[in-house]
Amino acid sequence: MSLVVGVDIGGTKIAAGLVDHSGTLLATATRPTPATEGPDAILATATALIHTLTESRGVVIAAGSAEVGRDLRDGTGESAGVGGLGGRGVVTAVGVGSAGVVDPGRGVVVSATGALAGWAGTDLRGELSRRLGVPVVVGNDVHAHALGEQWRGAAAGREDVLLVAVGTGVGASAMLGGRVRHGAHAVAGHAGHVPVAAAAGRPCPCGGQGHVEAVASGPALFGEYRRRGGTDAADLAGVARLAAAGDPLAADVLAEGGAALGSLIGGLMNVIDPEIVVIGGGVAGCGEPWWRPLRAAIAAEVLPALRDVPVEPAALAGAAALLGAARMALEASP
Amino acid sequence: MSLVVGVDIGGTKIAAGLVDHSGTLLATATRPTPATEGPDAILATATALIHTLTESRGVVIAAGSAEVGRDLRDGTGESAGVGGLGGRGVVTAVGVGSAGVVDPGRGVVVSATGALAGWAGTDLRGELSRRLGVPVVVGNDVHAHALGEQWRGAAAGREDVLLVAVGTGVGASAMLGGRVRHGAHAVAGHAGHVPVAAAAGRPCPCGGQGHVEAVASGPALFGEYRRRGGTDAADLAGVARLAAAGDPLAADVLAEGGAALGSLIGGLMNVIDPEIVVIGGGVAGCGEPWWRPLRAAIAAEVLPALRDVPVEPAALAGAAALLGAARMALEASP
Repeated sequence: MSLVVGVDIGGTKIAAGLVDHSGTLLATATRPTPATEGPDAILATATALIHTLTESRGVVIAAGSAEVGRDLRDGTGESAGVGGLGGRGVVTAVGVGSAGVVDPGRGVVVSATGALAGWAGTDLRGELSRRLGVPVVVGNDVHAHALGEQWRGAAAGREDVLLVAVGTGVGASAMLGGRVRHGAHAVAGHAGHVPVAAAAGRPCPCGGQGHVEAVASGPALFGEYRRRGGTDAADLAGVARLAAAGDPLAADVLAEGGAALGSLIGGLMNVIDPEIVVIGGGVAGCGEPWWRPLRAAIAAEVLPALRDVPVEPAALAGAAALLGAARMALEASP
Repeated sequence: MSLVVGVDIGGTKIAAGLVDHSGTLLATATRPTPATEGPDAILATATALIHTLTESRGVVIAAGSAEVGRDLRDGTGESAGVGGLGGRGVVTAVGVGSAGVVDPGRGVVVSATGALAGWAGTDLRGELSRRLGVPVVVGNDVHAHALGEQWRGAAAGREDVLLVAVGTGVGASAMLGGRVRHGAHAVAGHAGHVPVAAAAGRPCPCGGQGHVEAVASGPALFGEYRRRGGTDAADLAGVARLAAAGDPLAADVLAEGGAALGSLIGGLMNVIDPEIVVIGGGVAGCGEPWWRPLRAAIAAEVLPALRDVPVEPAALAGAAALLGAARMALEASP
């Protein structure tokens, strides 16, 4: 059976997943990202992680070896089945979604934030395909997230999708006519860097100011909670728990962040006009104190014809980017 | 010779142009829009205008009659040549760009502002094709504008274009991979209805508030000039003349409107990532007191990878929408 591996390279961790052609995630593995050690350390970690994943499942990595085995899911169940078939599964390609601006045409990291030291300029496709011996397809991690949600998640069956991911940063991906919009310079989807009124004057990690990421990202929300004197939560999850329990400061901070993001999303909907909006990333786990003002802000911005466009939470969490990265590999080398 | 007619239906006037397959505008005609008299009056005016245009040039309208004559531009010169060939040119299709949300698939006006009374719900394609006896293709006027500029204007040869039109309202059209993005509900491109900090709290013609159209449209700029006590200009062109001559109030008003629009455009560039941005509409004729702060605001918002994306004035003025509407007709019935 021909398989692919999807890889998600983020500032905190690198995850890899073994995926079949139907979009089933058969097994996963993760390691911390050696984010400060330079690109070679990141590439070595990703390579080792992929080997660990495949070896633990008795799967080999080999180019041009499609359909040498039988369906790995036959037999004794999903994950156990893979291990039990000893070498019959073959990984024929690897897809990688990475943080930063990634040019899928050239296979290169064009730019990246400080979270991944020296990552800009890395020949991600060339280096990984040389180390692994199979074709590698690369793209931005938020686009991979969108591809995954549109394949097997909240946007399944939709052709026009606006996915917004809110975590350490704010990013987006527009799938139009079933295809990810990468843009003329591989920059498309950087929705965190759109100005919103609530962020006026606030410095943004990009070096600009007034962008929604400056007030709506996870670090921005937790920073705002601290700035207003909040001491009862140690992280954003704690703020979310407090807000759910009725803590007014925690609720205000989440409401303002949700509203700022909703204002942006509503405005983008008027320009992009998607069938569905899917919102993922860690901040989307903050519950109704965040979702309610987000939805209200979207409703306040959108034109009447868009009032019924569904706005849904992402369904696949971290699996989305792995599935999407795997799909990139499948679509490039079917 | 087979020709098409491109029609531009706006709140103030209806224009029609006779266009050949190479994108040459052979002749034009305009009439005031009977905007308050209902859709039947608008359809009748458009129909009469098209007949006037074709009859004045000795061209007939007939379905399925391509290539019955010879090149109208042979002989005695462009426009005179058309008239002189008495009936040899044949209009085989009509393309219409109209203000409002226009669904090109159904051929219907989905919604429209109060500027065109009762226009929403009009079966624009059905009504005009019945009256004219040829196939009619319809779309939004800003998309037609973009199609024209990409065919023969400032965006010629580009595949990924963000066109922004600033006049009575603020609209946009994204051409991605050479195709106009209409959106899942034919709403795509409504960039006037994106919130910007400079418009916070300002009522927008759409019924919302805080949208860029509320501070950057022509009426918004002239209204702001008046609100601040300006009395030396009778219209926006007068404000532009004053600003060019150094009048501080006029210059401030144009600078603030240009900066608000530039802030929006820069943010959208980070999401859409076009090859080129083209800015048209009457307000784009306000000169450097408007363009300079617009360009500065764009530069302040865009990510480093987009700093060199060209931002150009539209090249074709009113002809763009006529050419674009004509192109819609040509592409639908080549």
